[in-house]
Amino acid sequence: MTENCIFCKIIKGQIPCTKVYEDADVFVFLDINPINKGHTLVVPKHHSENLYTIPEKDLLACVKTCKKVAIALKEAVKAEGVNIGMNNDGAAGQAVFHSHFHVIPRFSHDGLKHWPGKKYEGKEAEEIAQKLKGSLL
Amino acid sequence: MTENCIFCKIIKGQIPCTKVYEDADVFVFLDINPINKGHTLVVPKHHSENLYTIPEKDLLACVKTCKKVAIALKEAVKAEGVNIGMNNDGAAGQAVFHSHFHVIPRFSHDGLKHWPGKKYEGKEAEEIAQKLKGSLL
Repeated sequence: MTENCIFCKIIKGQIPCTKVYEDADVFVFLDINPINKGHTLVVPKHHSENLYTIPEKDLLACVKTCKKVAIALKEAVKAEGVNIGMNNDGAAGQAVFHSHFHVIPRFSHDGLKHWPGKKYEGKEAEEIAQKLKGSLL
Repeated sequence: MTENCIFCKIIKGQIPCTKVYEDADVFVFLDINPINKGHTLVVPKHHSENLYTIPEKDLLACVKTCKKVAIALKEAVKAEGVNIGMNNDGAAGQAVFHSHFHVIPRFSHDGLKHWPGKKYEGKEAEEIAQKLKGSLL
Protein backbone atom coordinates (compact mmCIF):
# COMPACT_ATOMS: atom_id res chain seq x y z
CA MET A 1 0.00 0.00 0.00
CA THR A 2 1.15 3.46 -0.86
CA GLU A 3 -0.02 6.21 1.45
CA ASN A 4 -2.57 8.58 -0.09
CA CYS A 5 -3.21 6.34 -3.10
CA ILE A 6 -6.99 6.24 -3.55
CA PHE A 7 -6.92 2.80 -5.20
CA CYS A 8 -4.77 1.32 -2.43
CA LYS A 9 -7.36 2.66 0.02
CA ILE A 10 -10.22 1.14 -2.00
CA ILE A 11 -8.41 -2.23 -2.07
CA LYS A 12 -7.94 -2.05 1.71
CA GLY A 13 -11.63 -1.19 2.23
CA GLN A 14 -10.81 2.26 3.59
CA ILE A 15 -12.80 3.94 0.81
CA PRO A 16 -16.07 2.38 -0.40
CA CYS A 17 -16.56 1.07 -3.93
CA THR A 18 -18.93 -1.13 -5.88
CA LYS A 19 -16.78 -4.24 -5.83
CA VAL A 20 -17.10 -6.90 -8.49
CA TYR A 21 -14.30 -9.38 -7.80
CA GLU A 22 -10.98 -9.91 -6.10
CA ASP A 23 -8.34 -12.60 -5.91
CA ALA A 24 -4.76 -12.69 -4.64
CA ASP A 25 -3.48 -10.36 -7.36
CA VAL A 26 -6.29 -8.16 -8.66
CA PHE A 27 -9.19 -6.06 -7.40
CA VAL A 28 -12.13 -5.27 -9.67
CA PHE A 29 -14.77 -2.57 -9.14
CA LEU A 30 -17.10 -0.29 -11.08
CA ASP A 31 -15.80 3.09 -12.23
CA ILE A 32 -17.71 5.72 -10.25
CA ASN A 33 -18.12 7.86 -13.41
CA PRO A 34 -18.79 5.23 -16.08
CA ILE A 35 -18.34 6.06 -19.75
CA ASN A 36 -21.14 3.52 -20.19
CA LYS A 37 -22.86 1.77 -17.31
CA GLY A 38 -20.88 -1.33 -16.40
CA HIS A 39 -17.52 0.41 -17.01
CA THR A 40 -15.19 -1.62 -14.80
CA LEU A 41 -11.69 -1.03 -13.44
CA VAL A 42 -9.22 -3.89 -13.09
CA VAL A 43 -6.46 -2.98 -10.66
CA PRO A 44 -3.42 -4.88 -9.36
CA LYS A 45 -3.45 -5.16 -5.57
CA HIS A 46 0.25 -4.43 -5.43
CA HIS A 47 0.83 -0.72 -6.02
CA SER A 48 2.62 0.32 -9.19
CA GLU A 49 2.20 3.61 -10.97
CA ASN A 50 1.65 2.60 -14.58
CA LEU A 51 2.53 0.26 -17.45
CA TYR A 52 6.18 1.31 -17.54
CA THR A 53 6.84 -0.06 -14.06
CA ILE A 54 4.11 -2.63 -13.35
CA PRO A 55 5.65 -6.03 -12.52
CA GLU A 56 4.95 -8.65 -15.19
CA LYS A 57 3.05 -10.86 -12.73
CA ASP A 58 0.57 -8.04 -12.01
CA LEU A 59 0.28 -7.09 -15.68
CA LEU A 60 -0.60 -10.63 -16.72
CA ALA A 61 -3.06 -11.09 -13.84
CA CYS A 62 -4.80 -7.84 -14.83
CA VAL A 63 -5.12 -8.62 -18.52
CA LYS A 64 -6.41 -12.15 -17.87
CA THR A 65 -9.04 -10.60 -15.60
CA CYS A 66 -9.90 -7.97 -18.25
CA LYS A 67 -10.71 -10.81 -20.63
CA LYS A 68 -13.07 -12.38 -18.08
CA VAL A 69 -14.73 -9.04 -17.33
CA ALA A 70 -15.16 -8.28 -21.05
CA ILE A 71 -16.95 -11.59 -21.58
CA ALA A 72 -19.04 -11.02 -18.44
CA LEU A 73 -20.12 -7.54 -19.65
CA LYS A 74 -21.58 -9.04 -22.82
CA GLU A 75 -24.08 -10.83 -20.60
CA ALA A 76 -24.40 -8.43 -17.62
CA VAL A 77 -25.20 -5.27 -19.58
CA LYS A 78 -25.71 -6.84 -23.03
CA ALA A 79 -22.60 -5.05 -24.33
CA GLU A 80 -22.31 -5.15 -28.11
CA GLY A 81 -18.59 -4.45 -27.87
CA VAL A 82 -15.90 -3.83 -25.26
CA ASN A 83 -12.96 -1.43 -25.15
CA ILE A 84 -9.91 -2.17 -23.04
CA GLY A 85 -7.93 0.92 -22.14
CA MET A 86 -4.96 1.83 -20.01
CA ASN A 87 -3.86 5.45 -19.60
CA ASN A 88 -0.28 6.04 -18.58
CA ASP A 89 0.82 9.49 -17.37
CA GLY A 90 -1.30 12.60 -17.02
CA ALA A 91 -0.70 13.43 -20.69
CA ALA A 92 -2.55 10.21 -21.57
CA GLY A 93 -5.49 10.92 -19.26
CA GLN A 94 -4.28 8.97 -16.22
CA ALA A 95 -5.99 10.50 -13.18
CA VAL A 96 -5.12 7.97 -10.46
CA PHE A 97 -1.47 6.95 -10.38
CA HIS A 98 -2.03 3.31 -9.51
CA SER A 99 -1.92 1.06 -12.61
CA HIS A 100 -5.42 0.24 -13.83
CA PHE A 101 -7.24 -1.10 -16.86
CA HIS A 102 -10.59 0.25 -18.03
CA VAL A 103 -13.06 -2.31 -19.37
CA ILE A 104 -15.80 -0.34 -21.10
CA PRO A 105 -19.00 -1.85 -22.49
CA ARG A 106 -19.99 -0.38 -25.85
CA PHE A 107 -23.20 -0.18 -27.83
CA SER A 108 -23.69 0.43 -31.55
CA HIS A 109 -25.53 3.69 -30.95
CA ASP A 110 -23.75 5.01 -27.84
CA GLY A 111 -22.45 8.01 -29.82
CA LEU A 112 -18.86 7.77 -28.49
CA LYS A 113 -16.41 8.98 -31.12
CA HIS A 114 -12.95 7.49 -31.68
CA TRP A 115 -9.94 9.73 -32.25
CA PRO A 116 -9.21 10.50 -35.92
CA GLY A 117 -6.08 9.29 -37.69
CA LYS A 118 -3.30 11.46 -39.07
CA LYS A 119 -1.06 10.90 -42.11
CA TYR A 120 2.69 10.33 -42.24
CA GLU A 121 4.70 12.42 -44.68
CA GLY A 122 7.88 11.40 -46.49
CA LYS A 123 10.02 9.04 -44.46
CA GLU A 124 8.53 9.92 -41.04
CA ALA A 125 7.09 6.45 -40.43
CA GLU A 126 10.33 4.65 -41.35
CA GLU A 127 12.34 7.00 -39.13
CA ILE A 128 10.10 6.40 -36.12
CA ALA A 129 10.09 2.63 -36.74
CA GLN A 130 13.87 2.69 -36.85
CA LYS A 131 14.06 4.45 -33.46
CA LEU A 132 11.54 1.99 -31.99
CA LYS A 133 13.53 -0.97 -33.32
CA GLY A 134 16.60 0.37 -31.59
CA SER A 135 14.79 0.51 -28.25
CA LEU A 136 13.07 -2.86 -28.63
CA LEU A 137 15.98 -5.06 -29.58
CA MET B 1 -3.53 -17.61 -41.25
CA THR B 2 -7.11 -16.79 -42.02
CA GLU B 3 -7.93 -16.07 -45.63
CA ASN B 4 -8.79 -12.45 -46.38
CA CYS B 5 -7.55 -11.20 -42.98
CA ILE B 6 -5.49 -8.07 -43.67
CA PHE B 7 -3.33 -8.53 -40.55
CA CYS B 8 -2.59 -12.17 -41.38
CA LYS B 9 -1.47 -10.94 -44.81
CA ILE B 10 0.72 -8.23 -43.25
CA ILE B 11 2.30 -10.83 -40.92
CA LYS B 12 3.01 -13.08 -43.92
CA GLY B 13 4.55 -10.17 -45.85
CA GLN B 14 1.82 -10.25 -48.48
CA ILE B 15 0.81 -6.67 -47.71
CA PRO B 16 3.51 -4.08 -46.88
CA CYS B 17 3.75 -2.35 -43.51
CA THR B 18 6.22 -0.30 -41.50
CA LYS B 19 7.45 -3.13 -39.31
CA VAL B 20 8.91 -2.49 -35.89
CA TYR B 21 9.46 -5.91 -34.34
CA GLU B 22 8.52 -9.56 -34.46
CA ASP B 23 9.18 -12.70 -32.46
CA ALA B 24 7.62 -16.16 -32.39
CA ASP B 25 4.29 -14.89 -31.02
CA VAL B 26 3.79 -11.23 -31.94
CA PHE B 27 4.15 -8.88 -34.88
CA VAL B 28 4.52 -5.12 -34.32
CA PHE B 29 4.07 -2.37 -36.91
CA LEU B 30 3.03 1.26 -37.21
CA ASP B 31 -0.65 2.08 -37.64
CA ILE B 32 -1.04 3.51 -41.15
CA ASN B 33 -3.39 6.24 -39.83
CA PRO B 34 -1.77 7.16 -36.53
CA ILE B 35 -3.75 9.02 -33.87
CA ASN B 36 -0.35 10.49 -33.02
CA LYS B 37 2.81 9.70 -34.95
CA GLY B 38 4.40 6.57 -33.50
CA HIS B 39 0.98 4.91 -32.93
CA THR B 40 1.90 1.22 -32.98
CA LEU B 41 -0.12 -1.98 -33.34
CA VAL B 42 0.81 -5.13 -31.43
CA VAL B 43 -0.73 -8.19 -33.05
CA PRO B 44 -0.58 -11.91 -32.23
CA LYS B 45 0.78 -13.94 -35.14
CA HIS B 46 -1.82 -16.63 -34.52
CA HIS B 47 -5.20 -15.41 -35.81
CA SER B 48 -7.93 -14.77 -33.27
CA GLU B 49 -10.77 -12.34 -33.65
CA ASN B 50 -10.73 -10.42 -30.38
CA LEU B 51 -10.26 -10.47 -26.61
CA TYR B 52 -13.14 -12.87 -26.03
CA THR B 53 -11.45 -15.67 -27.94
CA ILE B 54 -7.70 -14.86 -27.97
CA PRO B 55 -5.69 -17.73 -26.43
CA GLU B 56 -4.05 -16.77 -23.13
CA LYS B 57 -0.54 -17.35 -24.55
CA ASP B 58 -1.13 -14.79 -27.30
CA LEU B 59 -2.78 -12.32 -24.93
CA LEU B 60 0.14 -12.40 -22.52
CA ALA B 61 2.72 -12.13 -25.31
CA CYS B 62 0.89 -9.09 -26.70
CA VAL B 63 0.60 -7.24 -23.42
CA LYS B 64 4.25 -7.84 -22.50
CA THR B 65 5.16 -6.41 -25.90
CA CYS B 66 2.84 -3.43 -25.38
CA LYS B 67 4.79 -2.61 -22.22
CA LYS B 68 8.08 -2.65 -24.16
CA VAL B 69 6.65 -0.54 -26.98
CA ALA B 70 5.21 1.99 -24.49
CA ILE B 71 8.61 2.44 -22.89
CA ALA B 72 10.27 2.66 -26.32
CA LEU B 73 7.82 5.38 -27.47
CA LYS B 74 8.87 7.60 -24.56
CA GLU B 75 12.30 7.73 -26.16
CA ALA B 76 11.51 7.33 -29.89
CA VAL B 77 8.93 10.13 -30.17
CA LYS B 78 9.42 11.72 -26.74
CA ALA B 79 5.91 10.62 -25.70
CA GLU B 80 4.71 12.31 -22.51
CA GLY B 81 2.16 9.55 -21.98
CA VAL B 82 0.94 6.37 -23.62
CA ASN B 83 -2.53 4.89 -24.09
CA ILE B 84 -3.05 1.18 -24.52
CA GLY B 85 -6.29 0.29 -26.26
CA MET B 86 -8.04 -2.78 -27.57
CA ASN B 87 -11.33 -2.50 -29.44
CA ASN B 88 -13.49 -5.59 -29.51
CA ASP B 89 -16.44 -5.81 -31.95
CA GLY B 90 -17.55 -3.22 -34.45
CA ALA B 91 -19.61 -1.47 -31.75
CA ALA B 92 -16.32 -0.76 -29.92
CA GLY B 93 -14.55 0.57 -33.00
CA GLN B 94 -12.84 -2.66 -34.09
CA ALA B 95 -12.17 -2.33 -37.83
CA VAL B 96 -9.89 -5.34 -38.46
CA PHE B 97 -11.13 -8.56 -36.92
CA HIS B 98 -7.74 -9.92 -35.91
CA SER B 99 -6.96 -9.22 -32.24
CA HIS B 100 -4.73 -6.18 -31.84
CA PHE B 101 -3.56 -3.69 -29.26
CA HIS B 102 -3.07 0.00 -29.99
CA VAL B 103 -0.09 1.67 -28.31
CA ILE B 104 -0.60 5.40 -28.74
CA PRO B 105 1.96 8.05 -27.77
CA ARG B 106 0.39 11.09 -26.12
CA PHE B 107 1.45 14.66 -25.56
CA SER B 108 0.16 17.20 -23.03
CA HIS B 109 -1.16 19.50 -25.73
CA ASP B 110 -2.28 16.99 -28.39
CA GLY B 111 -5.90 18.08 -27.96
CA LEU B 112 -7.34 14.55 -27.86
CA LYS B 113 -10.43 14.44 -25.65
CA HIS B 114 -11.37 11.52 -23.42
CA TRP B 115 -14.97 10.29 -23.24
CA PRO B 116 -17.04 11.89 -20.47
CA GLY B 117 -18.37 9.95 -17.49
CA LYS B 118 -22.01 9.30 -16.68
CA LYS B 119 -23.71 8.90 -13.29
CA TYR B 120 -25.40 5.87 -11.80
CA GLU B 121 -28.86 6.31 -10.32
CA GLY B 122 -30.40 4.42 -7.42
CA LYS B 123 -29.17 0.84 -7.21
CA GLU B 124 -28.01 0.57 -10.84
CA ALA B 125 -24.34 0.10 -9.96
CA GLU B 126 -25.02 -2.59 -7.36
CA GLU B 127 -27.32 -4.44 -9.76
CA ILE B 128 -24.71 -4.47 -12.53
CA ALA B 129 -21.98 -5.52 -10.10
CA GLN B 130 -24.18 -8.38 -8.94
CA LYS B 131 -24.64 -9.62 -12.50
CA LEU B 132 -20.90 -9.34 -13.18
CA LYS B 133 -20.09 -11.26 -9.99
CA GLY B 134 -22.37 -14.05 -11.15
CA SER B 135 -20.47 -14.32 -14.45
CA LEU B 136 -16.99 -14.00 -12.93
CA LEU B 137 -17.21 -16.58 -10.15
